Amino acid sequence: MSRTILRGRDWITTQEWSREELETALSLAYDLKLKFAAGIPHEYLKGKTNFLLFYNPSLRTRNSFEAGMTQLGGHAHFLSPSTMYTPGTADHEEPDKLIKETKEDLSDTARVLSRYGHTISIRIFQDASAWVHGRGNAIVREYAKWADIPVINMECDLYHPCQGLADLMTIKEKLGTLEGKKVAITWAYSDKDRTIGVMHSAALLCTRFGMDVTVAHPKGYEFDDHVTKWCRENAQQFGGSYEVIDDMDEAFRDADVVIPKSWVSNDYVPPKNKKIDLQGARAMASKYKNWKCTEEKLQLCKNSGIYMHCAPIDRGNEVTDEVVDGPRSVVFDEAENRLHAQKAIMTLVMGGRP
Amino acid sequence: MSRTILRGRDWITTQEWSREELETALSLAYDLKLKFAAGIPHEYLKGKTNFLLFYNPSLRTRNSFEAGMTQLGGHAHFLSPSTMYTPGTADHEEPDKLIKETKEDLSDTARVLSRYGHTISIRIFQDASAWVHGRGNAIVREYAKWADIPVINMECDLYHPCQGLADLMTIKEKLGTLEGKKVAITWAYSDKDRTIGVMHSAALLCTRFGMDVTVAHPKGYEFDDHVTKWCRENAQQFGGSYEVIDDMDEAFRDADVVIPKSWVSNDYVPPKNKKIDLQGARAMASKYKNWKCTEEKLQLCKNSGIYMHCAPIDRGNEVTDEVVDGPRSVVFDEAENRLHAQKAIMTLVMGGRP
Amino acid sequence: MSRTILRGRDWITTQEWSREELETALSLAYDLKLKFAAGIPHEYLKGKTNFLLFYNPSLRTRNSFEAGMTQLGGHAHFLSPSTMYTPGTADHEEPDKLIKETKEDLSDTARVLSRYGHTISIRIFQDASAWVHGRGNAIVREYAKWADIPVINMECDLYHPCQGLADLMTIKEKLGTLEGKKVAITWAYSDKDRTIGVMHSAALLCTRFGMDVTVAHPKGYEFDDHVTKWCRENAQQFGGSYEVIDDMDEAFRDADVVIPKSWVSNDYVPPKNKKIDLQGARAMASKYKNWKCTEEKLQLCKNSGIYMHCAPIDRGNEVTDEVVDGPRSVVFDEAENRLHAQKAIMTLVMGGRP
Repeated sequence: MSRTILRGRDWITTQEWSREELETALSLAYDLKLKFAAGIPHEYLKGKTNFLLFYNPSLRTRNSFEAGMTQLGGHAHFLSPSTMYTPGTADHEEPDKLIKETKEDLSDTARVLSRYGHTISIRIFQDASAWVHGRGNAIVREYAKWADIPVINMECDLYHPCQGLADLMTIKEKLGTLEGKKVAITWAYSDKDRTIGVMHSAALLCTRFGMDVTVAHPKGYEFDDHVTKWCRENAQQFGGSYEVIDDMDEAFRDADVVIPKSWVSNDYVPPKNKKIDLQGARAMASKYKNWKCTEEKLQLCKNSGIYMHCAPIDRGNEVTDEVVDGPRSVVFDEAENRLHAQKAIMTLVMGGRP
Repeated sequence: MSRTILRGRDWITTQEWSREELETALSLAYDLKLKFAAGIPHEYLKGKTNFLLFYNPSLRTRNSFEAGMTQLGGHAHFLSPSTMYTPGTADHEEPDKLIKETKEDLSDTARVLSRYGHTISIRIFQDASAWVHGRGNAIVREYAKWADIPVINMECDLYHPCQGLADLMTIKEKLGTLEGKKVAITWAYSDKDRTIGVMHSAALLCTRFGMDVTVAHPKGYEFDDHVTKWCRENAQQFGGSYEVIDDMDEAFRDADVVIPKSWVSNDYVPPKNKKIDLQGARAMASKYKNWKCTEEKLQLCKNSGIYMHCAPIDRGNEVTDEVVDGPRSVVFDEAENRLHAQKAIMTLVMGGRP
Repeated sequence: MSRTILRGRDWITTQEWSREELETALSLAYDLKLKFAAGIPHEYLKGKTNFLLFYNPSLRTRNSFEAGMTQLGGHAHFLSPSTMYTPGTADHEEPDKLIKETKEDLSDTARVLSRYGHTISIRIFQDASAWVHGRGNAIVREYAKWADIPVINMECDLYHPCQGLADLMTIKEKLGTLEGKKVAITWAYSDKDRTIGVMHSAALLCTRFGMDVTVAHPKGYEFDDHVTKWCRENAQQFGGSYEVIDDMDEAFRDADVVIPKSWVSNDYVPPKNKKIDLQGARAMASKYKNWKCTEEKLQLCKNSGIYMHCAPIDRGNEVTDEVVDGPRSVVFDEAENRLHAQKAIMTLVMGGRP
């Protein structure tokens, strides 16, 4: 750890934090986890407020952020746009018009909340950003542009950095070290419409810590170009590797970690497609129902290989019950680490040394 | 008081707590009430979180639990299934299909929340459990099965143990002692569709403390068989009595306490009836509009007799304004005791000695 | 400051607080602002609960009250009638029938909440009070009648005293003194339907502190008669002046402060009109699109003149972006002062000396 000044920083992608800053966050997360286990008080954010703006439903994120703030001595507001004057962006571009019932300028919302509390956290994707790929992230950045306090990304359509950090914590706990370990980040079938953020963030973080990352998906489910570029650069800089293939079995072979999860192909949503075509996206996905994480596929991994999923899990489609509830599954430890990872980020950005 | 180890226990029915354990809860409730009155701090649950899952509306329960957690130094999350990934049960039985939009497995919801906080509290009945009698309770028990932390029943379709304990506190405060006092637990007319949980819980608790319990209702409004059986056993074990009659006046005669309240007949809901027939239930109820608590009826009670209701009260149908706002009514003291009773339960199950 | 006993007082209009009491509130607000800036703890309401009943959406009010309670060591419940048993009034007057789905008597709601916490705060106007002018305020007063704890008006259809106090704080900070300063409180065009409460409260408070108040609006947008009467009496008692004109430019001329904002004419809502006619109201408003606060109009003010708005701002209609984001605009300082003003009121009414 060399850098300690993190107060006031945004947490939008992990890529914008240096490796040493991420290590600082990880160290703090483990320390907070130990204190939680032992019941040692850690009211580092006494009287402080985190505004949680949920444009989408949430179980893990809302409850881990809100309970986390309580444990840190502060409080989180659960905010839904329907109970406020729904914020819209100022520039009135085409996609904004798709966001109905805009009742207040987002720039005003962000500046006002900055006066009352200490962090603005935002979740926005899918319907809430009109399924325009990248629009959710743009809105998070718009909040960050106007806010005078840190902005935390609680999952947009491109990234889920909190999940990424929790995943990294979990892998390190289970495997001991990260360097040279093989992680398979693969597409899996679901009949629900899910976003790619979790997978982008997993790939971006694993390549920062010297892991051998294999991304696997059917043709048409490519990562964003800039994410692929970052992953390759990360691998080169930090001594791991990064490859993309179209074979789930091959990805699982000798893997230490598998992270199979569904996401919608960009071919069916704007800006790549003219319109939102979720029917078409589902039809395309249904061609790959064999991309399912089964006990049989898991046999291809190392004996010590672990299964991870951010949840909610589409049991029966993405994965069998046998796997989720089996001995290799670490999904509940992974879910718990959301709490500790986020408490670390919150403590650093709103309570860290000035 | 002989038993003090209550940490980690579920609070689903009072019947699952021993009489001595209930006495411990009562003693603590009175102590917390005194501290509240005197403004003496009692932060026994500092930094702890109670997840409140409300499938149904609430005034008293939500606000007494949430304010109670604040007073105890912790925090309660007000959770509505519409803002999370709606939990459904794993077994996919017929009644579950009636719960629309299941988006996450209840077993996952319960296990994840267990990692972030300290208690899961649930309210579920009526529409939320598809009016299948007993289904609400089954879902509460499903949470308890999967959760690693205590589960509190904030009212299901069979029981309302928090209300029961508050009622017992109130009766003891007003009458001085419980043994040998007559309590009339009677059906009353309403054009609203209400559940029976409050009445089951009142009968189950009063028979645990040596009271003479008379249940009165028109034919067709019978308590569940297993509840009747428990009540008779309780009466025998603890020296009171239990009788069931079909005459409101007779029940009121010489009563120390009357608790008249409406509930829907099981004849019109599954599994007894094939379909939900609330129209039919209302038509049946309307035959008994004279089952109303009036000043005149109250004259049949002892001079010191008190009127109780859990609220919301259907003024004009179940009872006259004159009674609710009259000198025998203890409904607001009863409502207040919800706070103290629940704080006692919360303190015991999540903060008690390890 | 001469009077210090404010514990238990309602905060419904500023007119019901004496000038000295308001000065006490202002002094405390400035002190709390300094403590907030310096990070000095001020947990004056430890363990206390403020129930926030929002019949209407809110950004500033909800978040400043909730964050404010956290900063004071207590907690605020965000309550929406849809999650409780919707309260209705007891007297069943005609306008009440317009409030659909009443499920519990307001008198019961108010008395029950009084048992659990320490203040009931209410926001109600527009649809929530059936657009019957004065009905929102009557409902706030109904809560106050039944509650045993203080009631805070978080904006009704007649007043917004919290905004008023924040505005006064802001004016004093910007101008140094209040006496003899000219404030223009003027109607402005919007195609949204807004209420008059903010403007009534600004006029009532500015006339209490010796300011020269000019109210300007097109014919048909008159203040309530009793407010005009109070304003004139205030001006006479406290040495300022009060005039009403129908010329926005004239109001702006040499003003130290301008507060231009839209409100709906009473000619189109009950009881003055038989029915609610918002279409008619919008048509009437559209005749006065030139009542817009522009940079040009602002040139008429003193060089040091400031622009204020309670927000949400109807950018483009009520005012140009150039003005809102320009050097004379104090809208974000004004929004921040909501926090400090409300913390002062809350501390006085629920934590003040007994």
